[in-house]
Amino acid sequence: MRTIDWIDEAIVLVDQTRLPGDLTYLRITTVAELIDAIKRLAVRGAPALGVAGALGVALAARTGEPIGPLREARPTAVNLAWGVDQAAAAPDPLARALRIRDEDIAACLAMGVLGADLLAGHGATRVMTVCNTGGLAAVERGTALGVIQTMHERGTLREALALETRPLLQGARLTAWELARMGAPHRLIVDSAGPFLLARGAADAVLIGADRIAANGDTANKIGSYALALGARRAGVPFLVIAPETTIDLATPGGDVITIEDRGPAEVLSIGGVRLAPEGAGALNPAFDVTPADLITAIVTDRRVIRLDRGETPDHA
Amino acid sequence: MRTIDWIDEAIVLVDQTRLPGDLTYLRITTVAELIDAIKRLAVRGAPALGVAGALGVALAARTGEPIGPLREARPTAVNLAWGVDQAAAAPDPLARALRIRDEDIAACLAMGVLGADLLAGHGATRVMTVCNTGGLAAVERGTALGVIQTMHERGTLREALALETRPLLQGARLTAWELARMGAPHRLIVDSAGPFLLARGAADAVLIGADRIAANGDTANKIGSYALALGARRAGVPFLVIAPETTIDLATPGGDVITIEDRGPAEVLSIGGVRLAPEGAGALNPAFDVTPADLITAIVTDRRVIRLDRGETPDHA
Repeated sequence: MRTIDWIDEAIVLVDQTRLPGDLTYLRITTVAELIDAIKRLAVRGAPALGVAGALGVALAARTGEPIGPLREARPTAVNLAWGVDQAAAAPDPLARALRIRDEDIAACLAMGVLGADLLAGHGATRVMTVCNTGGLAAVERGTALGVIQTMHERGTLREALALETRPLLQGARLTAWELARMGAPHRLIVDSAGPFLLARGAADAVLIGADRIAANGDTANKIGSYALALGARRAGVPFLVIAPETTIDLATPGGDVITIEDRGPAEVLSIGGVRLAPEGAGALNPAFDVTPADLITAIVTDRRVIRLDRGETPDHA
Repeated sequence: MRTIDWIDEAIVLVDQTRLPGDLTYLRITTVAELIDAIKRLAVRGAPALGVAGALGVALAARTGEPIGPLREARPTAVNLAWGVDQAAAAPDPLARALRIRDEDIAACLAMGVLGADLLAGHGATRVMTVCNTGGLAAVERGTALGVIQTMHERGTLREALALETRPLLQGARLTAWELARMGAPHRLIVDSAGPFLLARGAADAVLIGADRIAANGDTANKIGSYALALGARRAGVPFLVIAPETTIDLATPGGDVITIEDRGPAEVLSIGGVRLAPEGAGALNPAFDVTPADLITAIVTDRRVIRLDRGETPDHA
């Protein structure tokens, strides 16, 4: 299954807002439709957004639409703008976009091997993860969940604990669905239970993806990643960031300058149409957080393992 | 408004499962009904459970029902068993229960003053809290939310940030409702955003209640408290536990021996009847966590401030 692809002059992608109930595909033929799909998270995940951005430029070459608004559809994810820029600079945007798609498939396989090898060295068999970083966040296989998939294929995965990931519940809706499809043992937990379950020894390692990695190793990812990093440090278990090289943004020196998208109060105040809070309540809704490099054991990319715990950084390994 | 009271030979209590939609009362005339109300969290909160336990003994004296099952209805909260034992040992269980009710009202007022004074000393005006520790968790005023109420009455509260508190959303449903009723400025956040918002300077202090405080100061409270304590420590802001003296259990030497109630997967897998996860998914659901004493700045009771940050402990202040 491919999460996003180019078929018959259109972008075809899994509508992730319909999962886990229905596996349906959207056929997208204009940049405006693509921006809408990105904004309402029908397609999400840093690698998938890179492919979406590049394929969007191929669409724009056909419809004549501007690509500026596509580039800015999600402010925190660096891959979206990267994909747009790559395809826009190429003589043949579609050919470049298809190459990005194929490179993502290869990169996720490579990260799976490097990550699973690293965890084998730690003797880790029970892992904890947040959000969805699986095939649904990429093209075929994922980043952090791709490592878990490789562990499962090797027979070294005892259990994956998945944080449900409020407010949009990508863990409960998408990660649990992917783990069930691959037949991997797993349980869900509420987000706030993650750090405490680490303290009680429920997992041997934490694996997260990344939306943007700064030159010093500070990592922007789904809200809740930072709390897990604090919990992993206190519990003395490794905290790994799994992301392709394209997620590293050397133009960003550190996490303090990363824009954190606030997605507005509605997502916090209700779930699936069910109102949770009293009428009139307000909410803060940071979609991402920044984990400082000093709390990260290592960053695993498709090409290397950057050991932050040994003083390496993305720009100086 | 009283959350729990004794009226016309019955326990009358707010049905908290109906909030924030409806403010309705249950009239309870048997111990079996009371156990049911406790188990499904129609009445919850450590101080309110203490009053419920004591009033339950008064009911049992009328119906002839055994009180053992009432004492064990919630394993983590020490106040429930304490209330049962207090009333059972008294010559007149009802008189003892009514005294516990009145003492709770006075204790919450006293904690509000001690806590607000302590926070004034830190210059704190923006506070973060988890779960519901307000009047709905006690009789008239609350513990941690009682301190916030006192700050609001003094005009020193700039904002309260309330964690929604998955899985049962006591923050979104109950704390937001109480803050709105008292006219206090507040916003909701998802639980996993708490530690990161502390890192970004969104609050000056964290206030929590407690279900059980061990002799060394380790504190069992709603799941998510420990993650906030890690976040407060990293951000350098005070982390305060607000609880009556009756929550201190000198028979428990430290948090590692506290039983953590697992309330089963159903609460994690759905919200308000809306299924979140794929069919067949499993879940871990620890209802409480334990915050180690070294992460707690101070415990504020109705009689004293125990400065853990200065080496004081509940059993040796």
